[in-house]
Amino acid sequence: MPEKIFIATELYDAWPALSTAERVEGFEILQRDDADDFFRQLGARSRAELILALPSGERRLWMRLLAPDDAADVIQEVPAEEREALLTLLDDATRREVKGLLDYAEDEAGGLMNTRYSRLRADMSVGEAISYLRRDARQREKSVYYVYVVDAEERLLGVVSFRDLIVAPADKSVKEVMHTEVISARDDLDQEALSKLFMRHHLLMMPIVDAEARIKGVVSVDDIVQVVQEEATEDIQKIGGVETLEGPYLQVPLLRMIRKRAGWLAALFLGEMLTATAMGQFEAEIAQAVVLALFVPLIISSGGNSGSQATTLLIRAMALGEVRIRDWWRVIRRELVTGLGLGLILASIGLVRILLWQLLFNSYGDHYFLIAMTVALSLTGVVLWGSLMGSILPFILRGLGFDPASASAPFVATLVDVTGLVIYFTVAAMVLRGTLL
Amino acid sequence: MPEKIFIATELYDAWPALSTAERVEGFEILQRDDADDFFRQLGARSRAELILALPSGERRLWMRLLAPDDAADVIQEVPAEEREALLTLLDDATRREVKGLLDYAEDEAGGLMNTRYSRLRADMSVGEAISYLRRDARQREKSVYYVYVVDAEERLLGVVSFRDLIVAPADKSVKEVMHTEVISARDDLDQEALSKLFMRHHLLMMPIVDAEARIKGVVSVDDIVQVVQEEATEDIQKIGGVETLEGPYLQVPLLRMIRKRAGWLAALFLGEMLTATAMGQFEAEIAQAVVLALFVPLIISSGGNSGSQATTLLIRAMALGEVRIRDWWRVIRRELVTGLGLGLILASIGLVRILLWQLLFNSYGDHYFLIAMTVALSLTGVVLWGSLMGSILPFILRGLGFDPASASAPFVATLVDVTGLVIYFTVAAMVLRGTLL
Repeated sequence: MPEKIFIATELYDAWPALSTAERVEGFEILQRDDADDFFRQLGARSRAELILALPSGERRLWMRLLAPDDAADVIQEVPAEEREALLTLLDDATRREVKGLLDYAEDEAGGLMNTRYSRLRADMSVGEAISYLRRDARQREKSVYYVYVVDAEERLLGVVSFRDLIVAPADKSVKEVMHTEVISARDDLDQEALSKLFMRHHLLMMPIVDAEARIKGVVSVDDIVQVVQEEATEDIQKIGGVETLEGPYLQVPLLRMIRKRAGWLAALFLGEMLTATAMGQFEAEIAQAVVLALFVPLIISSGGNSGSQATTLLIRAMALGEVRIRDWWRVIRRELVTGLGLGLILASIGLVRILLWQLLFNSYGDHYFLIAMTVALSLTGVVLWGSLMGSILPFILRGLGFDPASASAPFVATLVDVTGLVIYFTVAAMVLRGTLL
Repeated sequence: MPEKIFIATELYDAWPALSTAERVEGFEILQRDDADDFFRQLGARSRAELILALPSGERRLWMRLLAPDDAADVIQEVPAEEREALLTLLDDATRREVKGLLDYAEDEAGGLMNTRYSRLRADMSVGEAISYLRRDARQREKSVYYVYVVDAEERLLGVVSFRDLIVAPADKSVKEVMHTEVISARDDLDQEALSKLFMRHHLLMMPIVDAEARIKGVVSVDDIVQVVQEEATEDIQKIGGVETLEGPYLQVPLLRMIRKRAGWLAALFLGEMLTATAMGQFEAEIAQAVVLALFVPLIISSGGNSGSQATTLLIRAMALGEVRIRDWWRVIRRELVTGLGLGLILASIGLVRILLWQLLFNSYGDHYFLIAMTVALSLTGVVLWGSLMGSILPFILRGLGFDPASASAPFVATLVDVTGLVIYFTVAAMVLRGTLL
């Protein structure tokens, strides 16, 4: 027994690093019970990969182990030409349910729901309900702990938990013990909005209804944990300037990995080319005072860093619903103060650095103080500008109907680089006119 | 009725934007039932703020509405000097439980658990168990759907669901219907590891045990949703180069906001100062060929962007357990290929851009082709270097015992800026020697 567990756990831990052939080999070693448990722990993508790699005689067994919603997820993961073959492995009733689920988008409530839930009529007594559920429960998925009360048209009237039924006297009617204030969601609700409802009301399960308020299935909170995890991953990858990978890092084929990263990288590169153009405008100034060029990376990267901070904070605050579009003016006011404060802090450090180097190494010649002033003023302006851009961009993107997370850290940094150069050389032209320039 | 719901929903939606006084005012308008529901929907921080702002006569009422784990969370949110006062509002039994919970760190399993769960002895019959639970259930929190079977020393023997009890014949013993393969966690387990266990086994609830395998409480999956959300927020803020805010964006006081951002920003600035030193080493080359300065931002930012992509992908993959420390060599090999591919793509775009500008505007003089080659070679090297650094740093940080998420996008970009300059000017010295330099 300890050894069996050891094998299953080892296999689970090694899974992400194994090739398909190694996975099948490891899986086939497991005892039947362990294999069942193991299969249940896998995500839809791994299940799909495994089923396609198994001999066709074994496929039916594993497909039939899955609840309709899990079977639908697996079918969504396989290439289009394999779908029909997997569907035919299911029994007729399940196949109909799975086909119904496949009509929903993966990221809407209907695509997450389990169609096997327990139903009761309101006029049953608690005793009748318990005997009915005793027969019915063996058919249903283990994790269903609520029973929904529906009318003849399958419209949702209320909910009782198994626990409510145990606690209530057997001769009361279901109507008397059910809760009528049921929080339900429409089948076309986006999964992100659905997860917010779950969190706000601390729900374990939610009934999903269609436009006519008929119950179509239930979503369980353990699916919501996955949704929250996936949505965070998508946002994190967008913030880093990568298209959503749609797979674990080590599993994504190298060519697809390059494609997912090249798009944004090339777009940012094209934007960043404007820095060469902007610098070109100031070529004469640079030739006259080469010392100006030395501080270019320091100044533009400080703008980029403050912009990265602001955009990351705002993207996350928007995703969590802490900041809404109408809060834009409050955010700008906050970022004006924060950006100015941060800019002054960096300016002071920069000032001290230049004066110190001058004192120690006489690095910057006669006009060291003017140079120090140029750098300090530019830093204040660039950091303020970075904070403002970084905080406003997510609002603009959301306003235009895009995902605010597309205002990635590299995107904001690129924008601020170009404008940062203009700020720096403009300040330099003003401060240094008549001396160095 | 619809109007009441309207008020509660409006208040909930407006909550993040309201001042404390406005929150209290809105809360006091609610009818008692709505206020109860509303209070249950709030997070620990909002509850703490509200309770402190309410007249002391009302505080007891709201503190006593909370389950021990929720009360402990509220007490953790208030200033140290207020804690004792809130504790005295609780009844003796709850106070003892809350004090026990306060001994746990907020981010370990013990700090998340609910101490009110239902227990059974293994030798009870199912019928006895049901009658016992009928009396007991009214005392317990609504959301508990499992009953744990313990021995005389409170050691965990098994679990039954309310549903198992309904389905089983009344004369069987609890021992016969209970499941003995219970997945439990130690009370000092980190909450991130705990949430991985929940996700892997699709659990709704998990018993928490101490070092002697005695059950101390239960954690419910709806708390895990919050954990997953919080951990993602922490990682996102770190990736953006901000210390964890510990509060919604709009609620964090401005001075604290500046402090949370200034630390990293100043550290990055100090690092970025090395760019001025590095550029200083090449001052003579820049003076000779000012055109070199024009491409500095383009080249170093491309390295920074590819580094941001790589570090973000690896930080997330590590957080999800998709990549472990021992995978470092596979990751490096992947990033070598990816980085080279991405570098060649950007180099081609850069080459075309310079040749095109030369053709159209004669921007770069006689040695335009050598300049183009310098830029293209440097881009390839810098992007490759950025991808490598961005992917290796999270491993190094984890190896040293730090959070890999501290290898933030701005941190990697800063590192790559400095080395990127060295790469660029070294390539320039080799390619342009004898012509421009």
